[in-house]
Amino acid sequence: MTDDPPATVADHLLDRLADLGVSHVFGVPGDYNLAFLDRVLAHPRMTWVGTANELGAAYAADGYARIAGFGALLTTYGVGELSAINAVAGSYAEYVPLLHVAVGPARAAERSGAVLHHTFGDADFERFARVHAEVVCAHATLRPGTAADTIDRVLGTAVRNSRPAYLRLPSDVAAAPVTAPARRSRSGPTADGTGLAAFTLAARARLERAATVTVLADFLVDRFGARPELTRLLAAGPLPHATPVSGKDLLDEGNPFHLGVYSGAFSDPAVRELVDDADLLIRAGVVLADTTSGGLTHGFDTATGIGLGPHSARVDGLVFPDVPLRAGLAVLAELVADRETPPTPLRTAPTAGAPAEDGPLTQDRLWNAVAAAVRPGDVVAADQGTAYYGMATRRLPDGTRFLGQPLWGSIGYTLPALLGAQLADRSRRGVLLIGDGSAQMTVQELGTFGRHGLAPVIVLVNNRGYTVERVIHGPRAAYNEIAAWDWPAVPAALGVRDPFVATVRTGRELDAALDRAARTPGRLAFIEAVTGLATCHRCSAASRTP
Amino acid sequence: MTDDPPATVADHLLDRLADLGVSHVFGVPGDYNLAFLDRVLAHPRMTWVGTANELGAAYAADGYARIAGFGALLTTYGVGELSAINAVAGSYAEYVPLLHVAVGPARAAERSGAVLHHTFGDADFERFARVHAEVVCAHATLRPGTAADTIDRVLGTAVRNSRPAYLRLPSDVAAAPVTAPARRSRSGPTADGTGLAAFTLAARARLERAATVTVLADFLVDRFGARPELTRLLAAGPLPHATPVSGKDLLDEGNPFHLGVYSGAFSDPAVRELVDDADLLIRAGVVLADTTSGGLTHGFDTATGIGLGPHSARVDGLVFPDVPLRAGLAVLAELVADRETPPTPLRTAPTAGAPAEDGPLTQDRLWNAVAAAVRPGDVVAADQGTAYYGMATRRLPDGTRFLGQPLWGSIGYTLPALLGAQLADRSRRGVLLIGDGSAQMTVQELGTFGRHGLAPVIVLVNNRGYTVERVIHGPRAAYNEIAAWDWPAVPAALGVRDPFVATVRTGRELDAALDRAARTPGRLAFIEAVTGLATCHRCSAASRTP
Repeated sequence: MTDDPPATVADHLLDRLADLGVSHVFGVPGDYNLAFLDRVLAHPRMTWVGTANELGAAYAADGYARIAGFGALLTTYGVGELSAINAVAGSYAEYVPLLHVAVGPARAAERSGAVLHHTFGDADFERFARVHAEVVCAHATLRPGTAADTIDRVLGTAVRNSRPAYLRLPSDVAAAPVTAPARRSRSGPTADGTGLAAFTLAARARLERAATVTVLADFLVDRFGARPELTRLLAAGPLPHATPVSGKDLLDEGNPFHLGVYSGAFSDPAVRELVDDADLLIRAGVVLADTTSGGLTHGFDTATGIGLGPHSARVDGLVFPDVPLRAGLAVLAELVADRETPPTPLRTAPTAGAPAEDGPLTQDRLWNAVAAAVRPGDVVAADQGTAYYGMATRRLPDGTRFLGQPLWGSIGYTLPALLGAQLADRSRRGVLLIGDGSAQMTVQELGTFGRHGLAPVIVLVNNRGYTVERVIHGPRAAYNEIAAWDWPAVPAALGVRDPFVATVRTGRELDAALDRAARTPGRLAFIEAVTGLATCHRCSAASRTP
Repeated sequence: MTDDPPATVADHLLDRLADLGVSHVFGVPGDYNLAFLDRVLAHPRMTWVGTANELGAAYAADGYARIAGFGALLTTYGVGELSAINAVAGSYAEYVPLLHVAVGPARAAERSGAVLHHTFGDADFERFARVHAEVVCAHATLRPGTAADTIDRVLGTAVRNSRPAYLRLPSDVAAAPVTAPARRSRSGPTADGTGLAAFTLAARARLERAATVTVLADFLVDRFGARPELTRLLAAGPLPHATPVSGKDLLDEGNPFHLGVYSGAFSDPAVRELVDDADLLIRAGVVLADTTSGGLTHGFDTATGIGLGPHSARVDGLVFPDVPLRAGLAVLAELVADRETPPTPLRTAPTAGAPAEDGPLTQDRLWNAVAAAVRPGDVVAADQGTAYYGMATRRLPDGTRFLGQPLWGSIGYTLPALLGAQLADRSRRGVLLIGDGSAQMTVQELGTFGRHGLAPVIVLVNNRGYTVERVIHGPRAAYNEIAAWDWPAVPAALGVRDPFVATVRTGRELDAALDRAARTPGRLAFIEAVTGLATCHRCSAASRTP
């Protein structure tokens, strides 16, 4: 906060976003939001990131939020906000907190019922707010007298639920003075002492009865800010632990008690046994979806064991409300530390990288090579499909952040999401794995990397079609083919200056290109990897669910 | 219809679409819709057009519908359908009839409440249907026993209202047999004899009182199938006539009574006078929006004169329901033919094309050159912004079709829309005018032209930013700048084979490039026209409305 009170609703809104750690607003200009954009440019703590289209902006805001903790998206009424809505729905499905601000016609238009562009001409200015109400956890239309409190309420709900919120903002309201000093709402859940005490008693008894304990941790641990508490739990005693693909980057995969990825029936047998057959399975922030549980083939009973959700906990089916995830994990860490007979640690052998043989590039060889090139601290994005499952099942260095969208599964997500993630933390190198079909969805944001001085390593898997769909249905069908692009020419054509571009067809060529990319960190690297058709058991498993 | 009854709901749906003149289905495959796609490929009258993303598919279906009369869009549940919704809303705003079919999880998933990808994991499978309900005129979820009747009802409503409809189709319902032979619903409005007789009497009296009569015709004449009746009216007697930009291609601009474009206060004074001051103004299918009426500066009173809407008519404020646009125009044609003293015909001088001087290319010179290169029968698409107003105010040859989106105004629309329009009528040459900011929105569909053997002439106006926004606000603001692309390299990079590419900076260079393009009709022509900043009164007018 600056010392001066914010002059307008727009300034106040930007201050509140800055207080949440937001320093970048993503979006596209439109005539209704231009004056608001002037306030973004004038704000001392905000940077405007204009993207090629609104879907890209919204994916970028999502990627940004996954690293920075909260995201911000600015669109114009109707056309802009609707172009972004698939990404906003994805943020909801994947528990990513952000604010979508759609600036629209001034209230005078609402009163006159004028037929304006970007409307249906029917004087119904709440229509697109109703549309967004279906895909966000909080939404409102701002009015001058109540704007400050409404902003706090809506942002508070988004933070508490780790999900997107939406504000419809008439352009004149954005420019109106903030009339009421806002009461600051508390954000984030707080623990209720009583519920926590009861949970502690139940969890202690349950732990004492268990001969073997395994921890399964998933992405809600990240979304509800409980990474430190999870780390503390796993440090408290020798606990075998695993994650679904969706929890990929939560854990140090070099930890001797780290089992690897759990995917139901598609897990390594040793992982599966330790998870499914544990006397006590502690599930921390787990979401069981078809795409993250081997098509819902998990072998444990969700009605037993200890389950920690965002705001409540369960012990053998007994529900303890008002137990935030962080508090629940902290309790378990203390209980495990006090425990006398730790279970025998067991560890599966790390997945051996395929030997660095040469020959036509297989998808397996591809994932191994890229995994081997990942450095601690990188942010790795892998698009839903074979790229995602390929990378998620490789061991990555500690401190790597891993972006994907296994629940929502909107292909094309990762390219703009990586843009946002890198702007959230410029110290992290970006690494992107994406198929050609996915990249064609959102390719225009390549140029946006260049505008902001970002130089990720992009591995474009060229197999001329939708491989994951071919695996599921129609391996030779025309509808799984796509337009044949001249991929090596794409980055420079779309505005990337002096990219390092390579086409590789063998493992050795890929290794060499990744090595070259690592040695030229200032240049965006674009590696076209030409592969054959993959088989992907985890992908096809999803399709077998009804 | 084939002689055999359709086997499944999917086949029946495709038959019904074919009956409406649809021969191309646009969309993107997704795991839920792959089996439906098999039925599209198997259908004797259907061609599948896979696009790079769903927004492109939906815009293409809209462009197709504007030429063929009805469009079809196929997406997958959640991610796919939401990516398309901005375009579907645009079809609603602009009265374009099409069907959006979103194929999703099978009913078994609805019953089990399984957590599936592309959902919110909350077993609410109607959520995205509710979202679409806000932007379509009819929607339903198909069930086996009632599917045939539901399809007829939904399609009938879309045809009657000339607006989009939406079907949620569980994948197992698509594959289910059609159990009931469908009753064929009548499509299109029918005239009510009584209403029409009353209208005829009132209109005759009104015409007899009028010393001067002018006709203002707009795009609803096209959407409700009344082009022949409008032509008949204008042939019945010497009637001065004009269109808003949105009615651009309705009239033969070589007709001596054609006044040109009417844009309220921004019209040529002679046009304005004949429209605003006519004793009787006949308005046929007119929609008055800020962007098509010079910012709602029209000078006539909508409560007087004769107004023909899609399904009703007005004479000096008296409403006659059950008078379809076609019938109303037919009545007026007879009345005008019977009239004894025709008003003095008046015609404004055709807008003189600027002399073909050379020198740095101005936007005015650009529009004149492109208009001069348009041939009868071409389909010309001009993206909302300076390109749209520039082209809409030039005289074009009779038989030209003109595509734009002045009411919804979603930039990037025209590139995929032209793809659809050309597939609807391959005999028409495509001509596209689009700014760089707009083209970046939907550029990935360039490759889709190539896949289908289409070779339009594309003029890309490169002014490094959103010119129309600069005119409105922030002429030097960073947010109106965009990533600098290497435009001449873009078509080949995105899959266009052997394009004719030119960069022009003067009028002469543009003339030469357009001439070359006309002489190589088999090659997609991509002309990068580098211009300075434009002034556009009609664009800025829109921004002055609240």
